[in-house]
Amino acid sequence: MGAGRRRERDEGGTAPPEHPPVTFSPSAEFPPLTDAELTALHDVGQRWHADLGGHPPRDAVLPLDPSLEQYRQQPTPGRFGRLARIEMFRTERRGQLTVTGSADASGTWLRRAPARLRRALLGPPLASAAVLQERMRKLVALPVLSSDLLSSVAYGPEAMLAVLVLAGSGALGLSLPIAAGLVVLMVTVGTSYRQTIRAYPHGAGSYLVASDSLGPRSGLTAAAGLILDYVLTVSVSVAAGIGAITSALPGLTPFTVPLGLLVIAGLLAGNLRGVRAAGKIFAAPTYLFIAAVLLLFAVGLARAAARGFTPVPPPQVGAVEGLGLLVVLRAFASGASSMTGIEAVADAVPAFRPVEWRQARTTLTWMVGILVVLFAGLTILIDFNGLVPGGDETLLSQLARRTFPTGPWYALIQAATTIVLLLAANTAFNDFPRLLFFMARDGYAPRRFLHMGDRLAFSNGIVALAVAAALIFVAFGGYTQSLIPLYAVGVFLAFTLSQAGMVAHWRRHRGRNWRRRAALNATGALLCALVLVTAAITKFVAGAWVVVLAVPLLVLLCLHIRWHYDAMREALALPPPQVPGTGRPEPAGGPGGSGRGGEPDPMGRPNRVEESTGPGDLLVDLTPREVRHLVVVPVARLNLAALRALAYAASLGQPVFAVHLSPEQEEADRFRQQWETWGDHLRLETIISPYRTVIAPLAQYVEALHAVRPEVTLTVVVPEIVVRHLWHKLLHTRTELLLRRALRDLPGVVVTSVPIHLPE
Amino acid sequence: MGAGRRRERDEGGTAPPEHPPVTFSPSAEFPPLTDAELTALHDVGQRWHADLGGHPPRDAVLPLDPSLEQYRQQPTPGRFGRLARIEMFRTERRGQLTVTGSADASGTWLRRAPARLRRALLGPPLASAAVLQERMRKLVALPVLSSDLLSSVAYGPEAMLAVLVLAGSGALGLSLPIAAGLVVLMVTVGTSYRQTIRAYPHGAGSYLVASDSLGPRSGLTAAAGLILDYVLTVSVSVAAGIGAITSALPGLTPFTVPLGLLVIAGLLAGNLRGVRAAGKIFAAPTYLFIAAVLLLFAVGLARAAARGFTPVPPPQVGAVEGLGLLVVLRAFASGASSMTGIEAVADAVPAFRPVEWRQARTTLTWMVGILVVLFAGLTILIDFNGLVPGGDETLLSQLARRTFPTGPWYALIQAATTIVLLLAANTAFNDFPRLLFFMARDGYAPRRFLHMGDRLAFSNGIVALAVAAALIFVAFGGYTQSLIPLYAVGVFLAFTLSQAGMVAHWRRHRGRNWRRRAALNATGALLCALVLVTAAITKFVAGAWVVVLAVPLLVLLCLHIRWHYDAMREALALPPPQVPGTGRPEPAGGPGGSGRGGEPDPMGRPNRVEESTGPGDLLVDLTPREVRHLVVVPVARLNLAALRALAYAASLGQPVFAVHLSPEQEEADRFRQQWETWGDHLRLETIISPYRTVIAPLAQYVEALHAVRPEVTLTVVVPEIVVRHLWHKLLHTRTELLLRRALRDLPGVVVTSVPIHLPE
Repeated sequence: MGAGRRRERDEGGTAPPEHPPVTFSPSAEFPPLTDAELTALHDVGQRWHADLGGHPPRDAVLPLDPSLEQYRQQPTPGRFGRLARIEMFRTERRGQLTVTGSADASGTWLRRAPARLRRALLGPPLASAAVLQERMRKLVALPVLSSDLLSSVAYGPEAMLAVLVLAGSGALGLSLPIAAGLVVLMVTVGTSYRQTIRAYPHGAGSYLVASDSLGPRSGLTAAAGLILDYVLTVSVSVAAGIGAITSALPGLTPFTVPLGLLVIAGLLAGNLRGVRAAGKIFAAPTYLFIAAVLLLFAVGLARAAARGFTPVPPPQVGAVEGLGLLVVLRAFASGASSMTGIEAVADAVPAFRPVEWRQARTTLTWMVGILVVLFAGLTILIDFNGLVPGGDETLLSQLARRTFPTGPWYALIQAATTIVLLLAANTAFNDFPRLLFFMARDGYAPRRFLHMGDRLAFSNGIVALAVAAALIFVAFGGYTQSLIPLYAVGVFLAFTLSQAGMVAHWRRHRGRNWRRRAALNATGALLCALVLVTAAITKFVAGAWVVVLAVPLLVLLCLHIRWHYDAMREALALPPPQVPGTGRPEPAGGPGGSGRGGEPDPMGRPNRVEESTGPGDLLVDLTPREVRHLVVVPVARLNLAALRALAYAASLGQPVFAVHLSPEQEEADRFRQQWETWGDHLRLETIISPYRTVIAPLAQYVEALHAVRPEVTLTVVVPEIVVRHLWHKLLHTRTELLLRRALRDLPGVVVTSVPIHLPE
Repeated sequence: MGAGRRRERDEGGTAPPEHPPVTFSPSAEFPPLTDAELTALHDVGQRWHADLGGHPPRDAVLPLDPSLEQYRQQPTPGRFGRLARIEMFRTERRGQLTVTGSADASGTWLRRAPARLRRALLGPPLASAAVLQERMRKLVALPVLSSDLLSSVAYGPEAMLAVLVLAGSGALGLSLPIAAGLVVLMVTVGTSYRQTIRAYPHGAGSYLVASDSLGPRSGLTAAAGLILDYVLTVSVSVAAGIGAITSALPGLTPFTVPLGLLVIAGLLAGNLRGVRAAGKIFAAPTYLFIAAVLLLFAVGLARAAARGFTPVPPPQVGAVEGLGLLVVLRAFASGASSMTGIEAVADAVPAFRPVEWRQARTTLTWMVGILVVLFAGLTILIDFNGLVPGGDETLLSQLARRTFPTGPWYALIQAATTIVLLLAANTAFNDFPRLLFFMARDGYAPRRFLHMGDRLAFSNGIVALAVAAALIFVAFGGYTQSLIPLYAVGVFLAFTLSQAGMVAHWRRHRGRNWRRRAALNATGALLCALVLVTAAITKFVAGAWVVVLAVPLLVLLCLHIRWHYDAMREALALPPPQVPGTGRPEPAGGPGGSGRGGEPDPMGRPNRVEESTGPGDLLVDLTPREVRHLVVVPVARLNLAALRALAYAASLGQPVFAVHLSPEQEEADRFRQQWETWGDHLRLETIISPYRTVIAPLAQYVEALHAVRPEVTLTVVVPEIVVRHLWHKLLHTRTELLLRRALRDLPGVVVTSVPIHLPE
């Protein structure tokens, strides 16, 4: 209910629209203000204007020129600075500077080293303007987005046959009709995704489609399924790839976990380099795999033709189960695992070059076409050669060995399969961050997933996926095979919701041929739902229950994140005009509340209006006149740091006093004498803390001051000693830090650190 | 050389005197200002006075009364507060408040729980005024300070005989003369410590005596030896105690490490409760042990008398080594390990009730007396009964079994021995924090060791010892026997230096009978040195080399700490009057430096004097007039938080401008439009960061501003969003924190956090 309610409120106007026309742009982190916010902003500006009587501080002369125009020749590094390079800034127009270089390469050699290593691994940073060039051409997109989908033909037909053979070798004849059904499913899903891409040209993933058509909870359910699946894809496919390597080179078996982490790190680095770079790295193996399997077909067909297309009868295998509908359905669902990567293109639509949807659609068509050819061809060849799953050898390997009894071809096919299985993880690295970007844009994921890294990739999402996959990989010791039953369920959950969403979409929007389109999507939804239910039921005990449990938990987490962001946005929203017509929310006397006791204001100002205290106090202090100051300076010892803090505080020209905390009366008296030696320029308050605690009494004292007159802004000026070396921090008690932490909880208390730097 | 030079300079007057008459007092953390510092303080005060023209801000009316006098009836907890309890403060005299309750017991139940547990374990906090009552009476001091010393008679005689028996059972006859020599050593060291306590009534530990008489390096050497020894005492004696328990109950052996940690935790808690409480806990076992051993003597003597004092001949044991001087020396040195706890009283003198030195001296006399009686008595009885070390049973156990063949007495003696061995660690818990207190007072240890906890114990030192001992205990898996050779060396290093220091002391101060006193101390020093050299040489390979290595390293660490504190004190010292006579360090125009380019000051003030820029810039900004302000407000989005920060910044009445960081030109233009909608009240500077980094360009920009005019104090006002729950922090990018960290390195840049609190 909560989400539905919130959704309705969002449509009221304060929230950004669900699908603004911007897509993958660095500005996504800065959503524009809504009209209501702009109105409120204007209103606050009017209050400010009235308060100041038309003398904006904007016109005051500053002690230096903030555009640095006069000073461009002076790259003077400070004595303590480690970033001082003014040349970094280029002045273009009045009031605007542009950063001309990457900012992370300065300071000492040791401090620069991590940044340099990063640059060496990831390449130079890319400017925001390059975002278009970083988008994908079709030839790059195909290998980047299809490795997951295409690699699955290496195990999809086998998974189907492995179920059928349970009913005896006689049942293997069913493989061709089931495969035909799967091809129908592939074509249906592919075609309906083509429709989806056209209908949602700014991103056509299940999350977006289901959110838009069926409501945010359906979208989040689809997203949760996909998130689980992406993480599993990475760890399982890396485990499978490493397994293939270690069965070839058994000496490497003890290094399974480090090898796997190395592969994940490689994928991480490759993807952090950005889409184009990742395409360059990952294109060759995918194309090699396609070529190798096509070669297998050609030779296999030639050999079959030489035999006059007479099929080899399979060896007799006894039945373990009776042949029933359940076995057929299970075989169908298992074979459908070949389709798990088909979603990749849909989420990545905005990452294509313009016209995005057209390029994406063509790419999808090609991918599905290749998938159908590979899948159908393999199934037919296996049937023709009478191969039976089982034993230590995969069907693909049996087929290759039988087709190429001699020569290097067999090894080539095996190697290409291994590499492409490893790279299947790469699809997840492309899709997962984009999915999180869309979720973060809607407030369902942390906002940091909106940030584009310095290579214009969504680095935070890429890193999150790598970390999650590595954790699972390490937790299972590199043997993640037990996670395979969890697979597929998440994807087909997403497919079903996406297709069902499209049906709803057509019903709402209609348009040309909408009935035909809706029927196509409905067929897809039905078939996907069939696979989903079959997979969830038959694999429930083996592990699918984890997904059934994890999906709602993830959805709940996303909703909680959204609720937090909603609460934050409400709290930070500007006050709407409360008195329509006047445009001022408060009477002309200014907002605020009087002191609790109603005592006369010692500053001689008129008492503030009572009714605006309490929950409305977030709405005051929005113009300079509304801020009433009291500056407090805690002083432990009258040294240079303390005197600077005192001078700073006094120089602000606001009411100020000092407070000293003492464990004993004698010490307090001694301090007061020193204070008088200094000249007693400021009022001094002493607190005796007989239990020798420092932070708690000070914080409590400030809180008491605040409670007395909540409308006064208390500024606590703390001298902060800055040391150069980390271990020197151990020699200081860091009162400043602890005090700041204790005061954080208090509204209306501003903490100011006046630093003093120790040499050496 | 460094330390000597610094010592000389310290005597020049800027440093606090090495041994002020205060001792263990909570005010030790606030050393009084020296005369030079007071003069400088007065001088700065005069500058301030002249700058303000006799209108001190002290007389300004504050918007509320900081003494809270009018508001005592209002314990209003804030919406976010967790410490709001105004009743805590009691107003006594004008300008002074006293904390009347412990500050840590407030907030929610969960937040209070740790504080409550602490209170339950440690008891209510003790006020500083109770420091005198927390001091020790003699009857409490004896068990608290002597458990280490007295428990060592359980193994001292055995250690001596174990060396002698290497030369065959015939050599065992030498045990009586060697024991006599050891008694002479004990009496000599005891007597000379009596003299030391009289001469250094404010603390007579080796560190203090050697520092004062032989220079700080000797003192630190002695301290390093003692520090190592205290840590070893705790882990070794806990290991020995647990060993005794597990040999009685072998089922507990797998729990050696947890049991040992439990014992260390118990010692920690007992000592954190304070001296008096620890005395109550630890007194009974020590007295029980003394009584048990005395009973053993009485019965043993009675039996011997019944035999007509005829000694039992020892069983024949073949010689492994020839009987030579080395064996005798080694036996002497091994027996001397009975003395390792004798230092305890000397460091603890100021913890006695007045008259401190007299009470301490009497306690020492008693301790040494009991030690001599127990040691000599045990050695004689062992000789009388013809007991030989070796086998699985300790000599004390053999003796007890022979003296009490039946009845519960044997078990009683064994139990008392076990408990007192465990408690031997307690002496270290008393002495170690006091030693660190003295070192911290001189700047050779972190200042936090000056702090008295809320039970008036030096909690930081107690915790440090427990942690160090526990680490060693865990690292050696509870089997710390291999550390025993490291023992003794450190203590006798300290003894030797202390006694030698006393000789130097008498030579300097003379006084009545100084030659006799010096001769006594010289004898003590000689004997201790003999033991030290013997122990170091004979145990070098077995482990003493660790001490030989660790002592200089520790001394170096202490010197480094002192250098850091010296540098800090110099950096924070107030500027001495630079122009004698006038009392003003700068011409009347005010200190400071002009901008680099010499451009005209846009504020219209006269240009500052050139010569005071550069290294002397720490000396300006000490009066309000000397502080020149420029306020910078980074704004990401025009929400409530940003507008409050802008209003706060503008309300200070100083020159102010805002800066916005944008990843793209489009976003920058959009932001400027919003700025104009608001009313364009402040000058806005935009920075385009095409590489999408935020913190580095902002920090670098501020640094560039600072480099342009270092004499301007830049105040960066950052809105800070405060969330209630820890996990919500993950949802925010915490720019404020990162920016603060990046700006910390810049001198003259003040960071102000304007908090805004999210509800829920």
